[in-house]
Amino acid sequence: MREEFQAELREVGQLLVDMAEAVRVAMRDATAALLGADRAAAQAVIDADAEVDQLYRQVEERVCDVIARQAPVAGDLRTVISALHISADIERMGDLSCHVARTAIRRHPAPAVPAELAGVVREMAQVADRIAAKITRVLATPDVLTASELDRDDDAMDALERQLFAVLLGPDWPHGVEAAVDAALLGRFYERYADHAVNSGHQIVYLLTGEPLTS
Amino acid sequence: MREEFQAELREVGQLLVDMAEAVRVAMRDATAALLGADRAAAQAVIDADAEVDQLYRQVEERVCDVIARQAPVAGDLRTVISALHISADIERMGDLSCHVARTAIRRHPAPAVPAELAGVVREMAQVADRIAAKITRVLATPDVLTASELDRDDDAMDALERQLFAVLLGPDWPHGVEAAVDAALLGRFYERYADHAVNSGHQIVYLLTGEPLTS
Repeated sequence: MREEFQAELREVGQLLVDMAEAVRVAMRDATAALLGADRAAAQAVIDADAEVDQLYRQVEERVCDVIARQAPVAGDLRTVISALHISADIERMGDLSCHVARTAIRRHPAPAVPAELAGVVREMAQVADRIAAKITRVLATPDVLTASELDRDDDAMDALERQLFAVLLGPDWPHGVEAAVDAALLGRFYERYADHAVNSGHQIVYLLTGEPLTS
Repeated sequence: MREEFQAELREVGQLLVDMAEAVRVAMRDATAALLGADRAAAQAVIDADAEVDQLYRQVEERVCDVIARQAPVAGDLRTVISALHISADIERMGDLSCHVARTAIRRHPAPAVPAELAGVVREMAQVADRIAAKITRVLATPDVLTASELDRDDDAMDALERQLFAVLLGPDWPHGVEAAVDAALLGRFYERYADHAVNSGHQIVYLLTGEPLTS
């Protein structure tokens, strides 16, 4: 029974990997569409989000299956339940990728990100991608991920968001209010994406090891 | 067993009411602190959020209890699980109230909302409050809430957010980039708060009736 339970947990874990890989690709593609002012690519990101939503529903179905068939209690039950939190975080990462894509579409054919900010937006996207990659990696080998590693990535994202705000609120900002508002919201989308990724990283380690991460 | 299960569901429902009431008060107080530039009141909103987080953990504990003791399957299990989604939405509403409060603190002693926007921000807060009130009301009498009612509130919030953006992106905006960015983010906080409230309204009806809302 125990082995069966663990095997079913791993299957749920695989669905989570599929979700995490999909939203990693989504944010990569959304960023490329944003920086390249590519409307079709942005629309493709939005269209592809239906698959993430579908996987999200599958996770919930599988979790209900595992609970109904294995009747886990105490810590095991909490562990299964944590898969729901993880999938909710990852589903939200997909939505945030769509928000980035929608910004690209709203400004098209003009670029939504002025040249001064392209560098910091690219770096934010890289940090987001690095954390998203860890979600998939940690499912193979849970113990390679440390809380301090995730916290460092999160700090890097926060620093980049401050850098973005310093530029758009600086005295030399030449692009006016609308571009500043867009950039501020974009910054928030990447920051939130990373935040959900860090959350789910913590929860995945808990799902797979039954132990919370410590710094 | 069935009656016991329903009674336990109602207890979980009561915790959700407590959460919903707490985040309703939180957004009311945050808005008052924002429009009144009241730093102490804003800090009180942030401090009070720990109670919402505590209730959130209690919901998860109770849900695990119900599952372990009643061993619900199929639709019943799904119904219990929906309480987790609801509590996650409401917990997030608490966070968004804190974001509004933090904006008030960051600008203090200056008001964070220029006079031109005070009216629309107040209206956004009123719509947010109206939807939050429905969450608590629907737990007493699930069938009074219709999907079309929630959708109307959501539409009203979206219209107000567009109105807010029209002012801050308009040619007559005299307050510069920083005030515009703050206002845009505030608009987003209220809009997200309403969005989570509408989501949880839908889910609560499902929790209590086992039937999804239809328009």
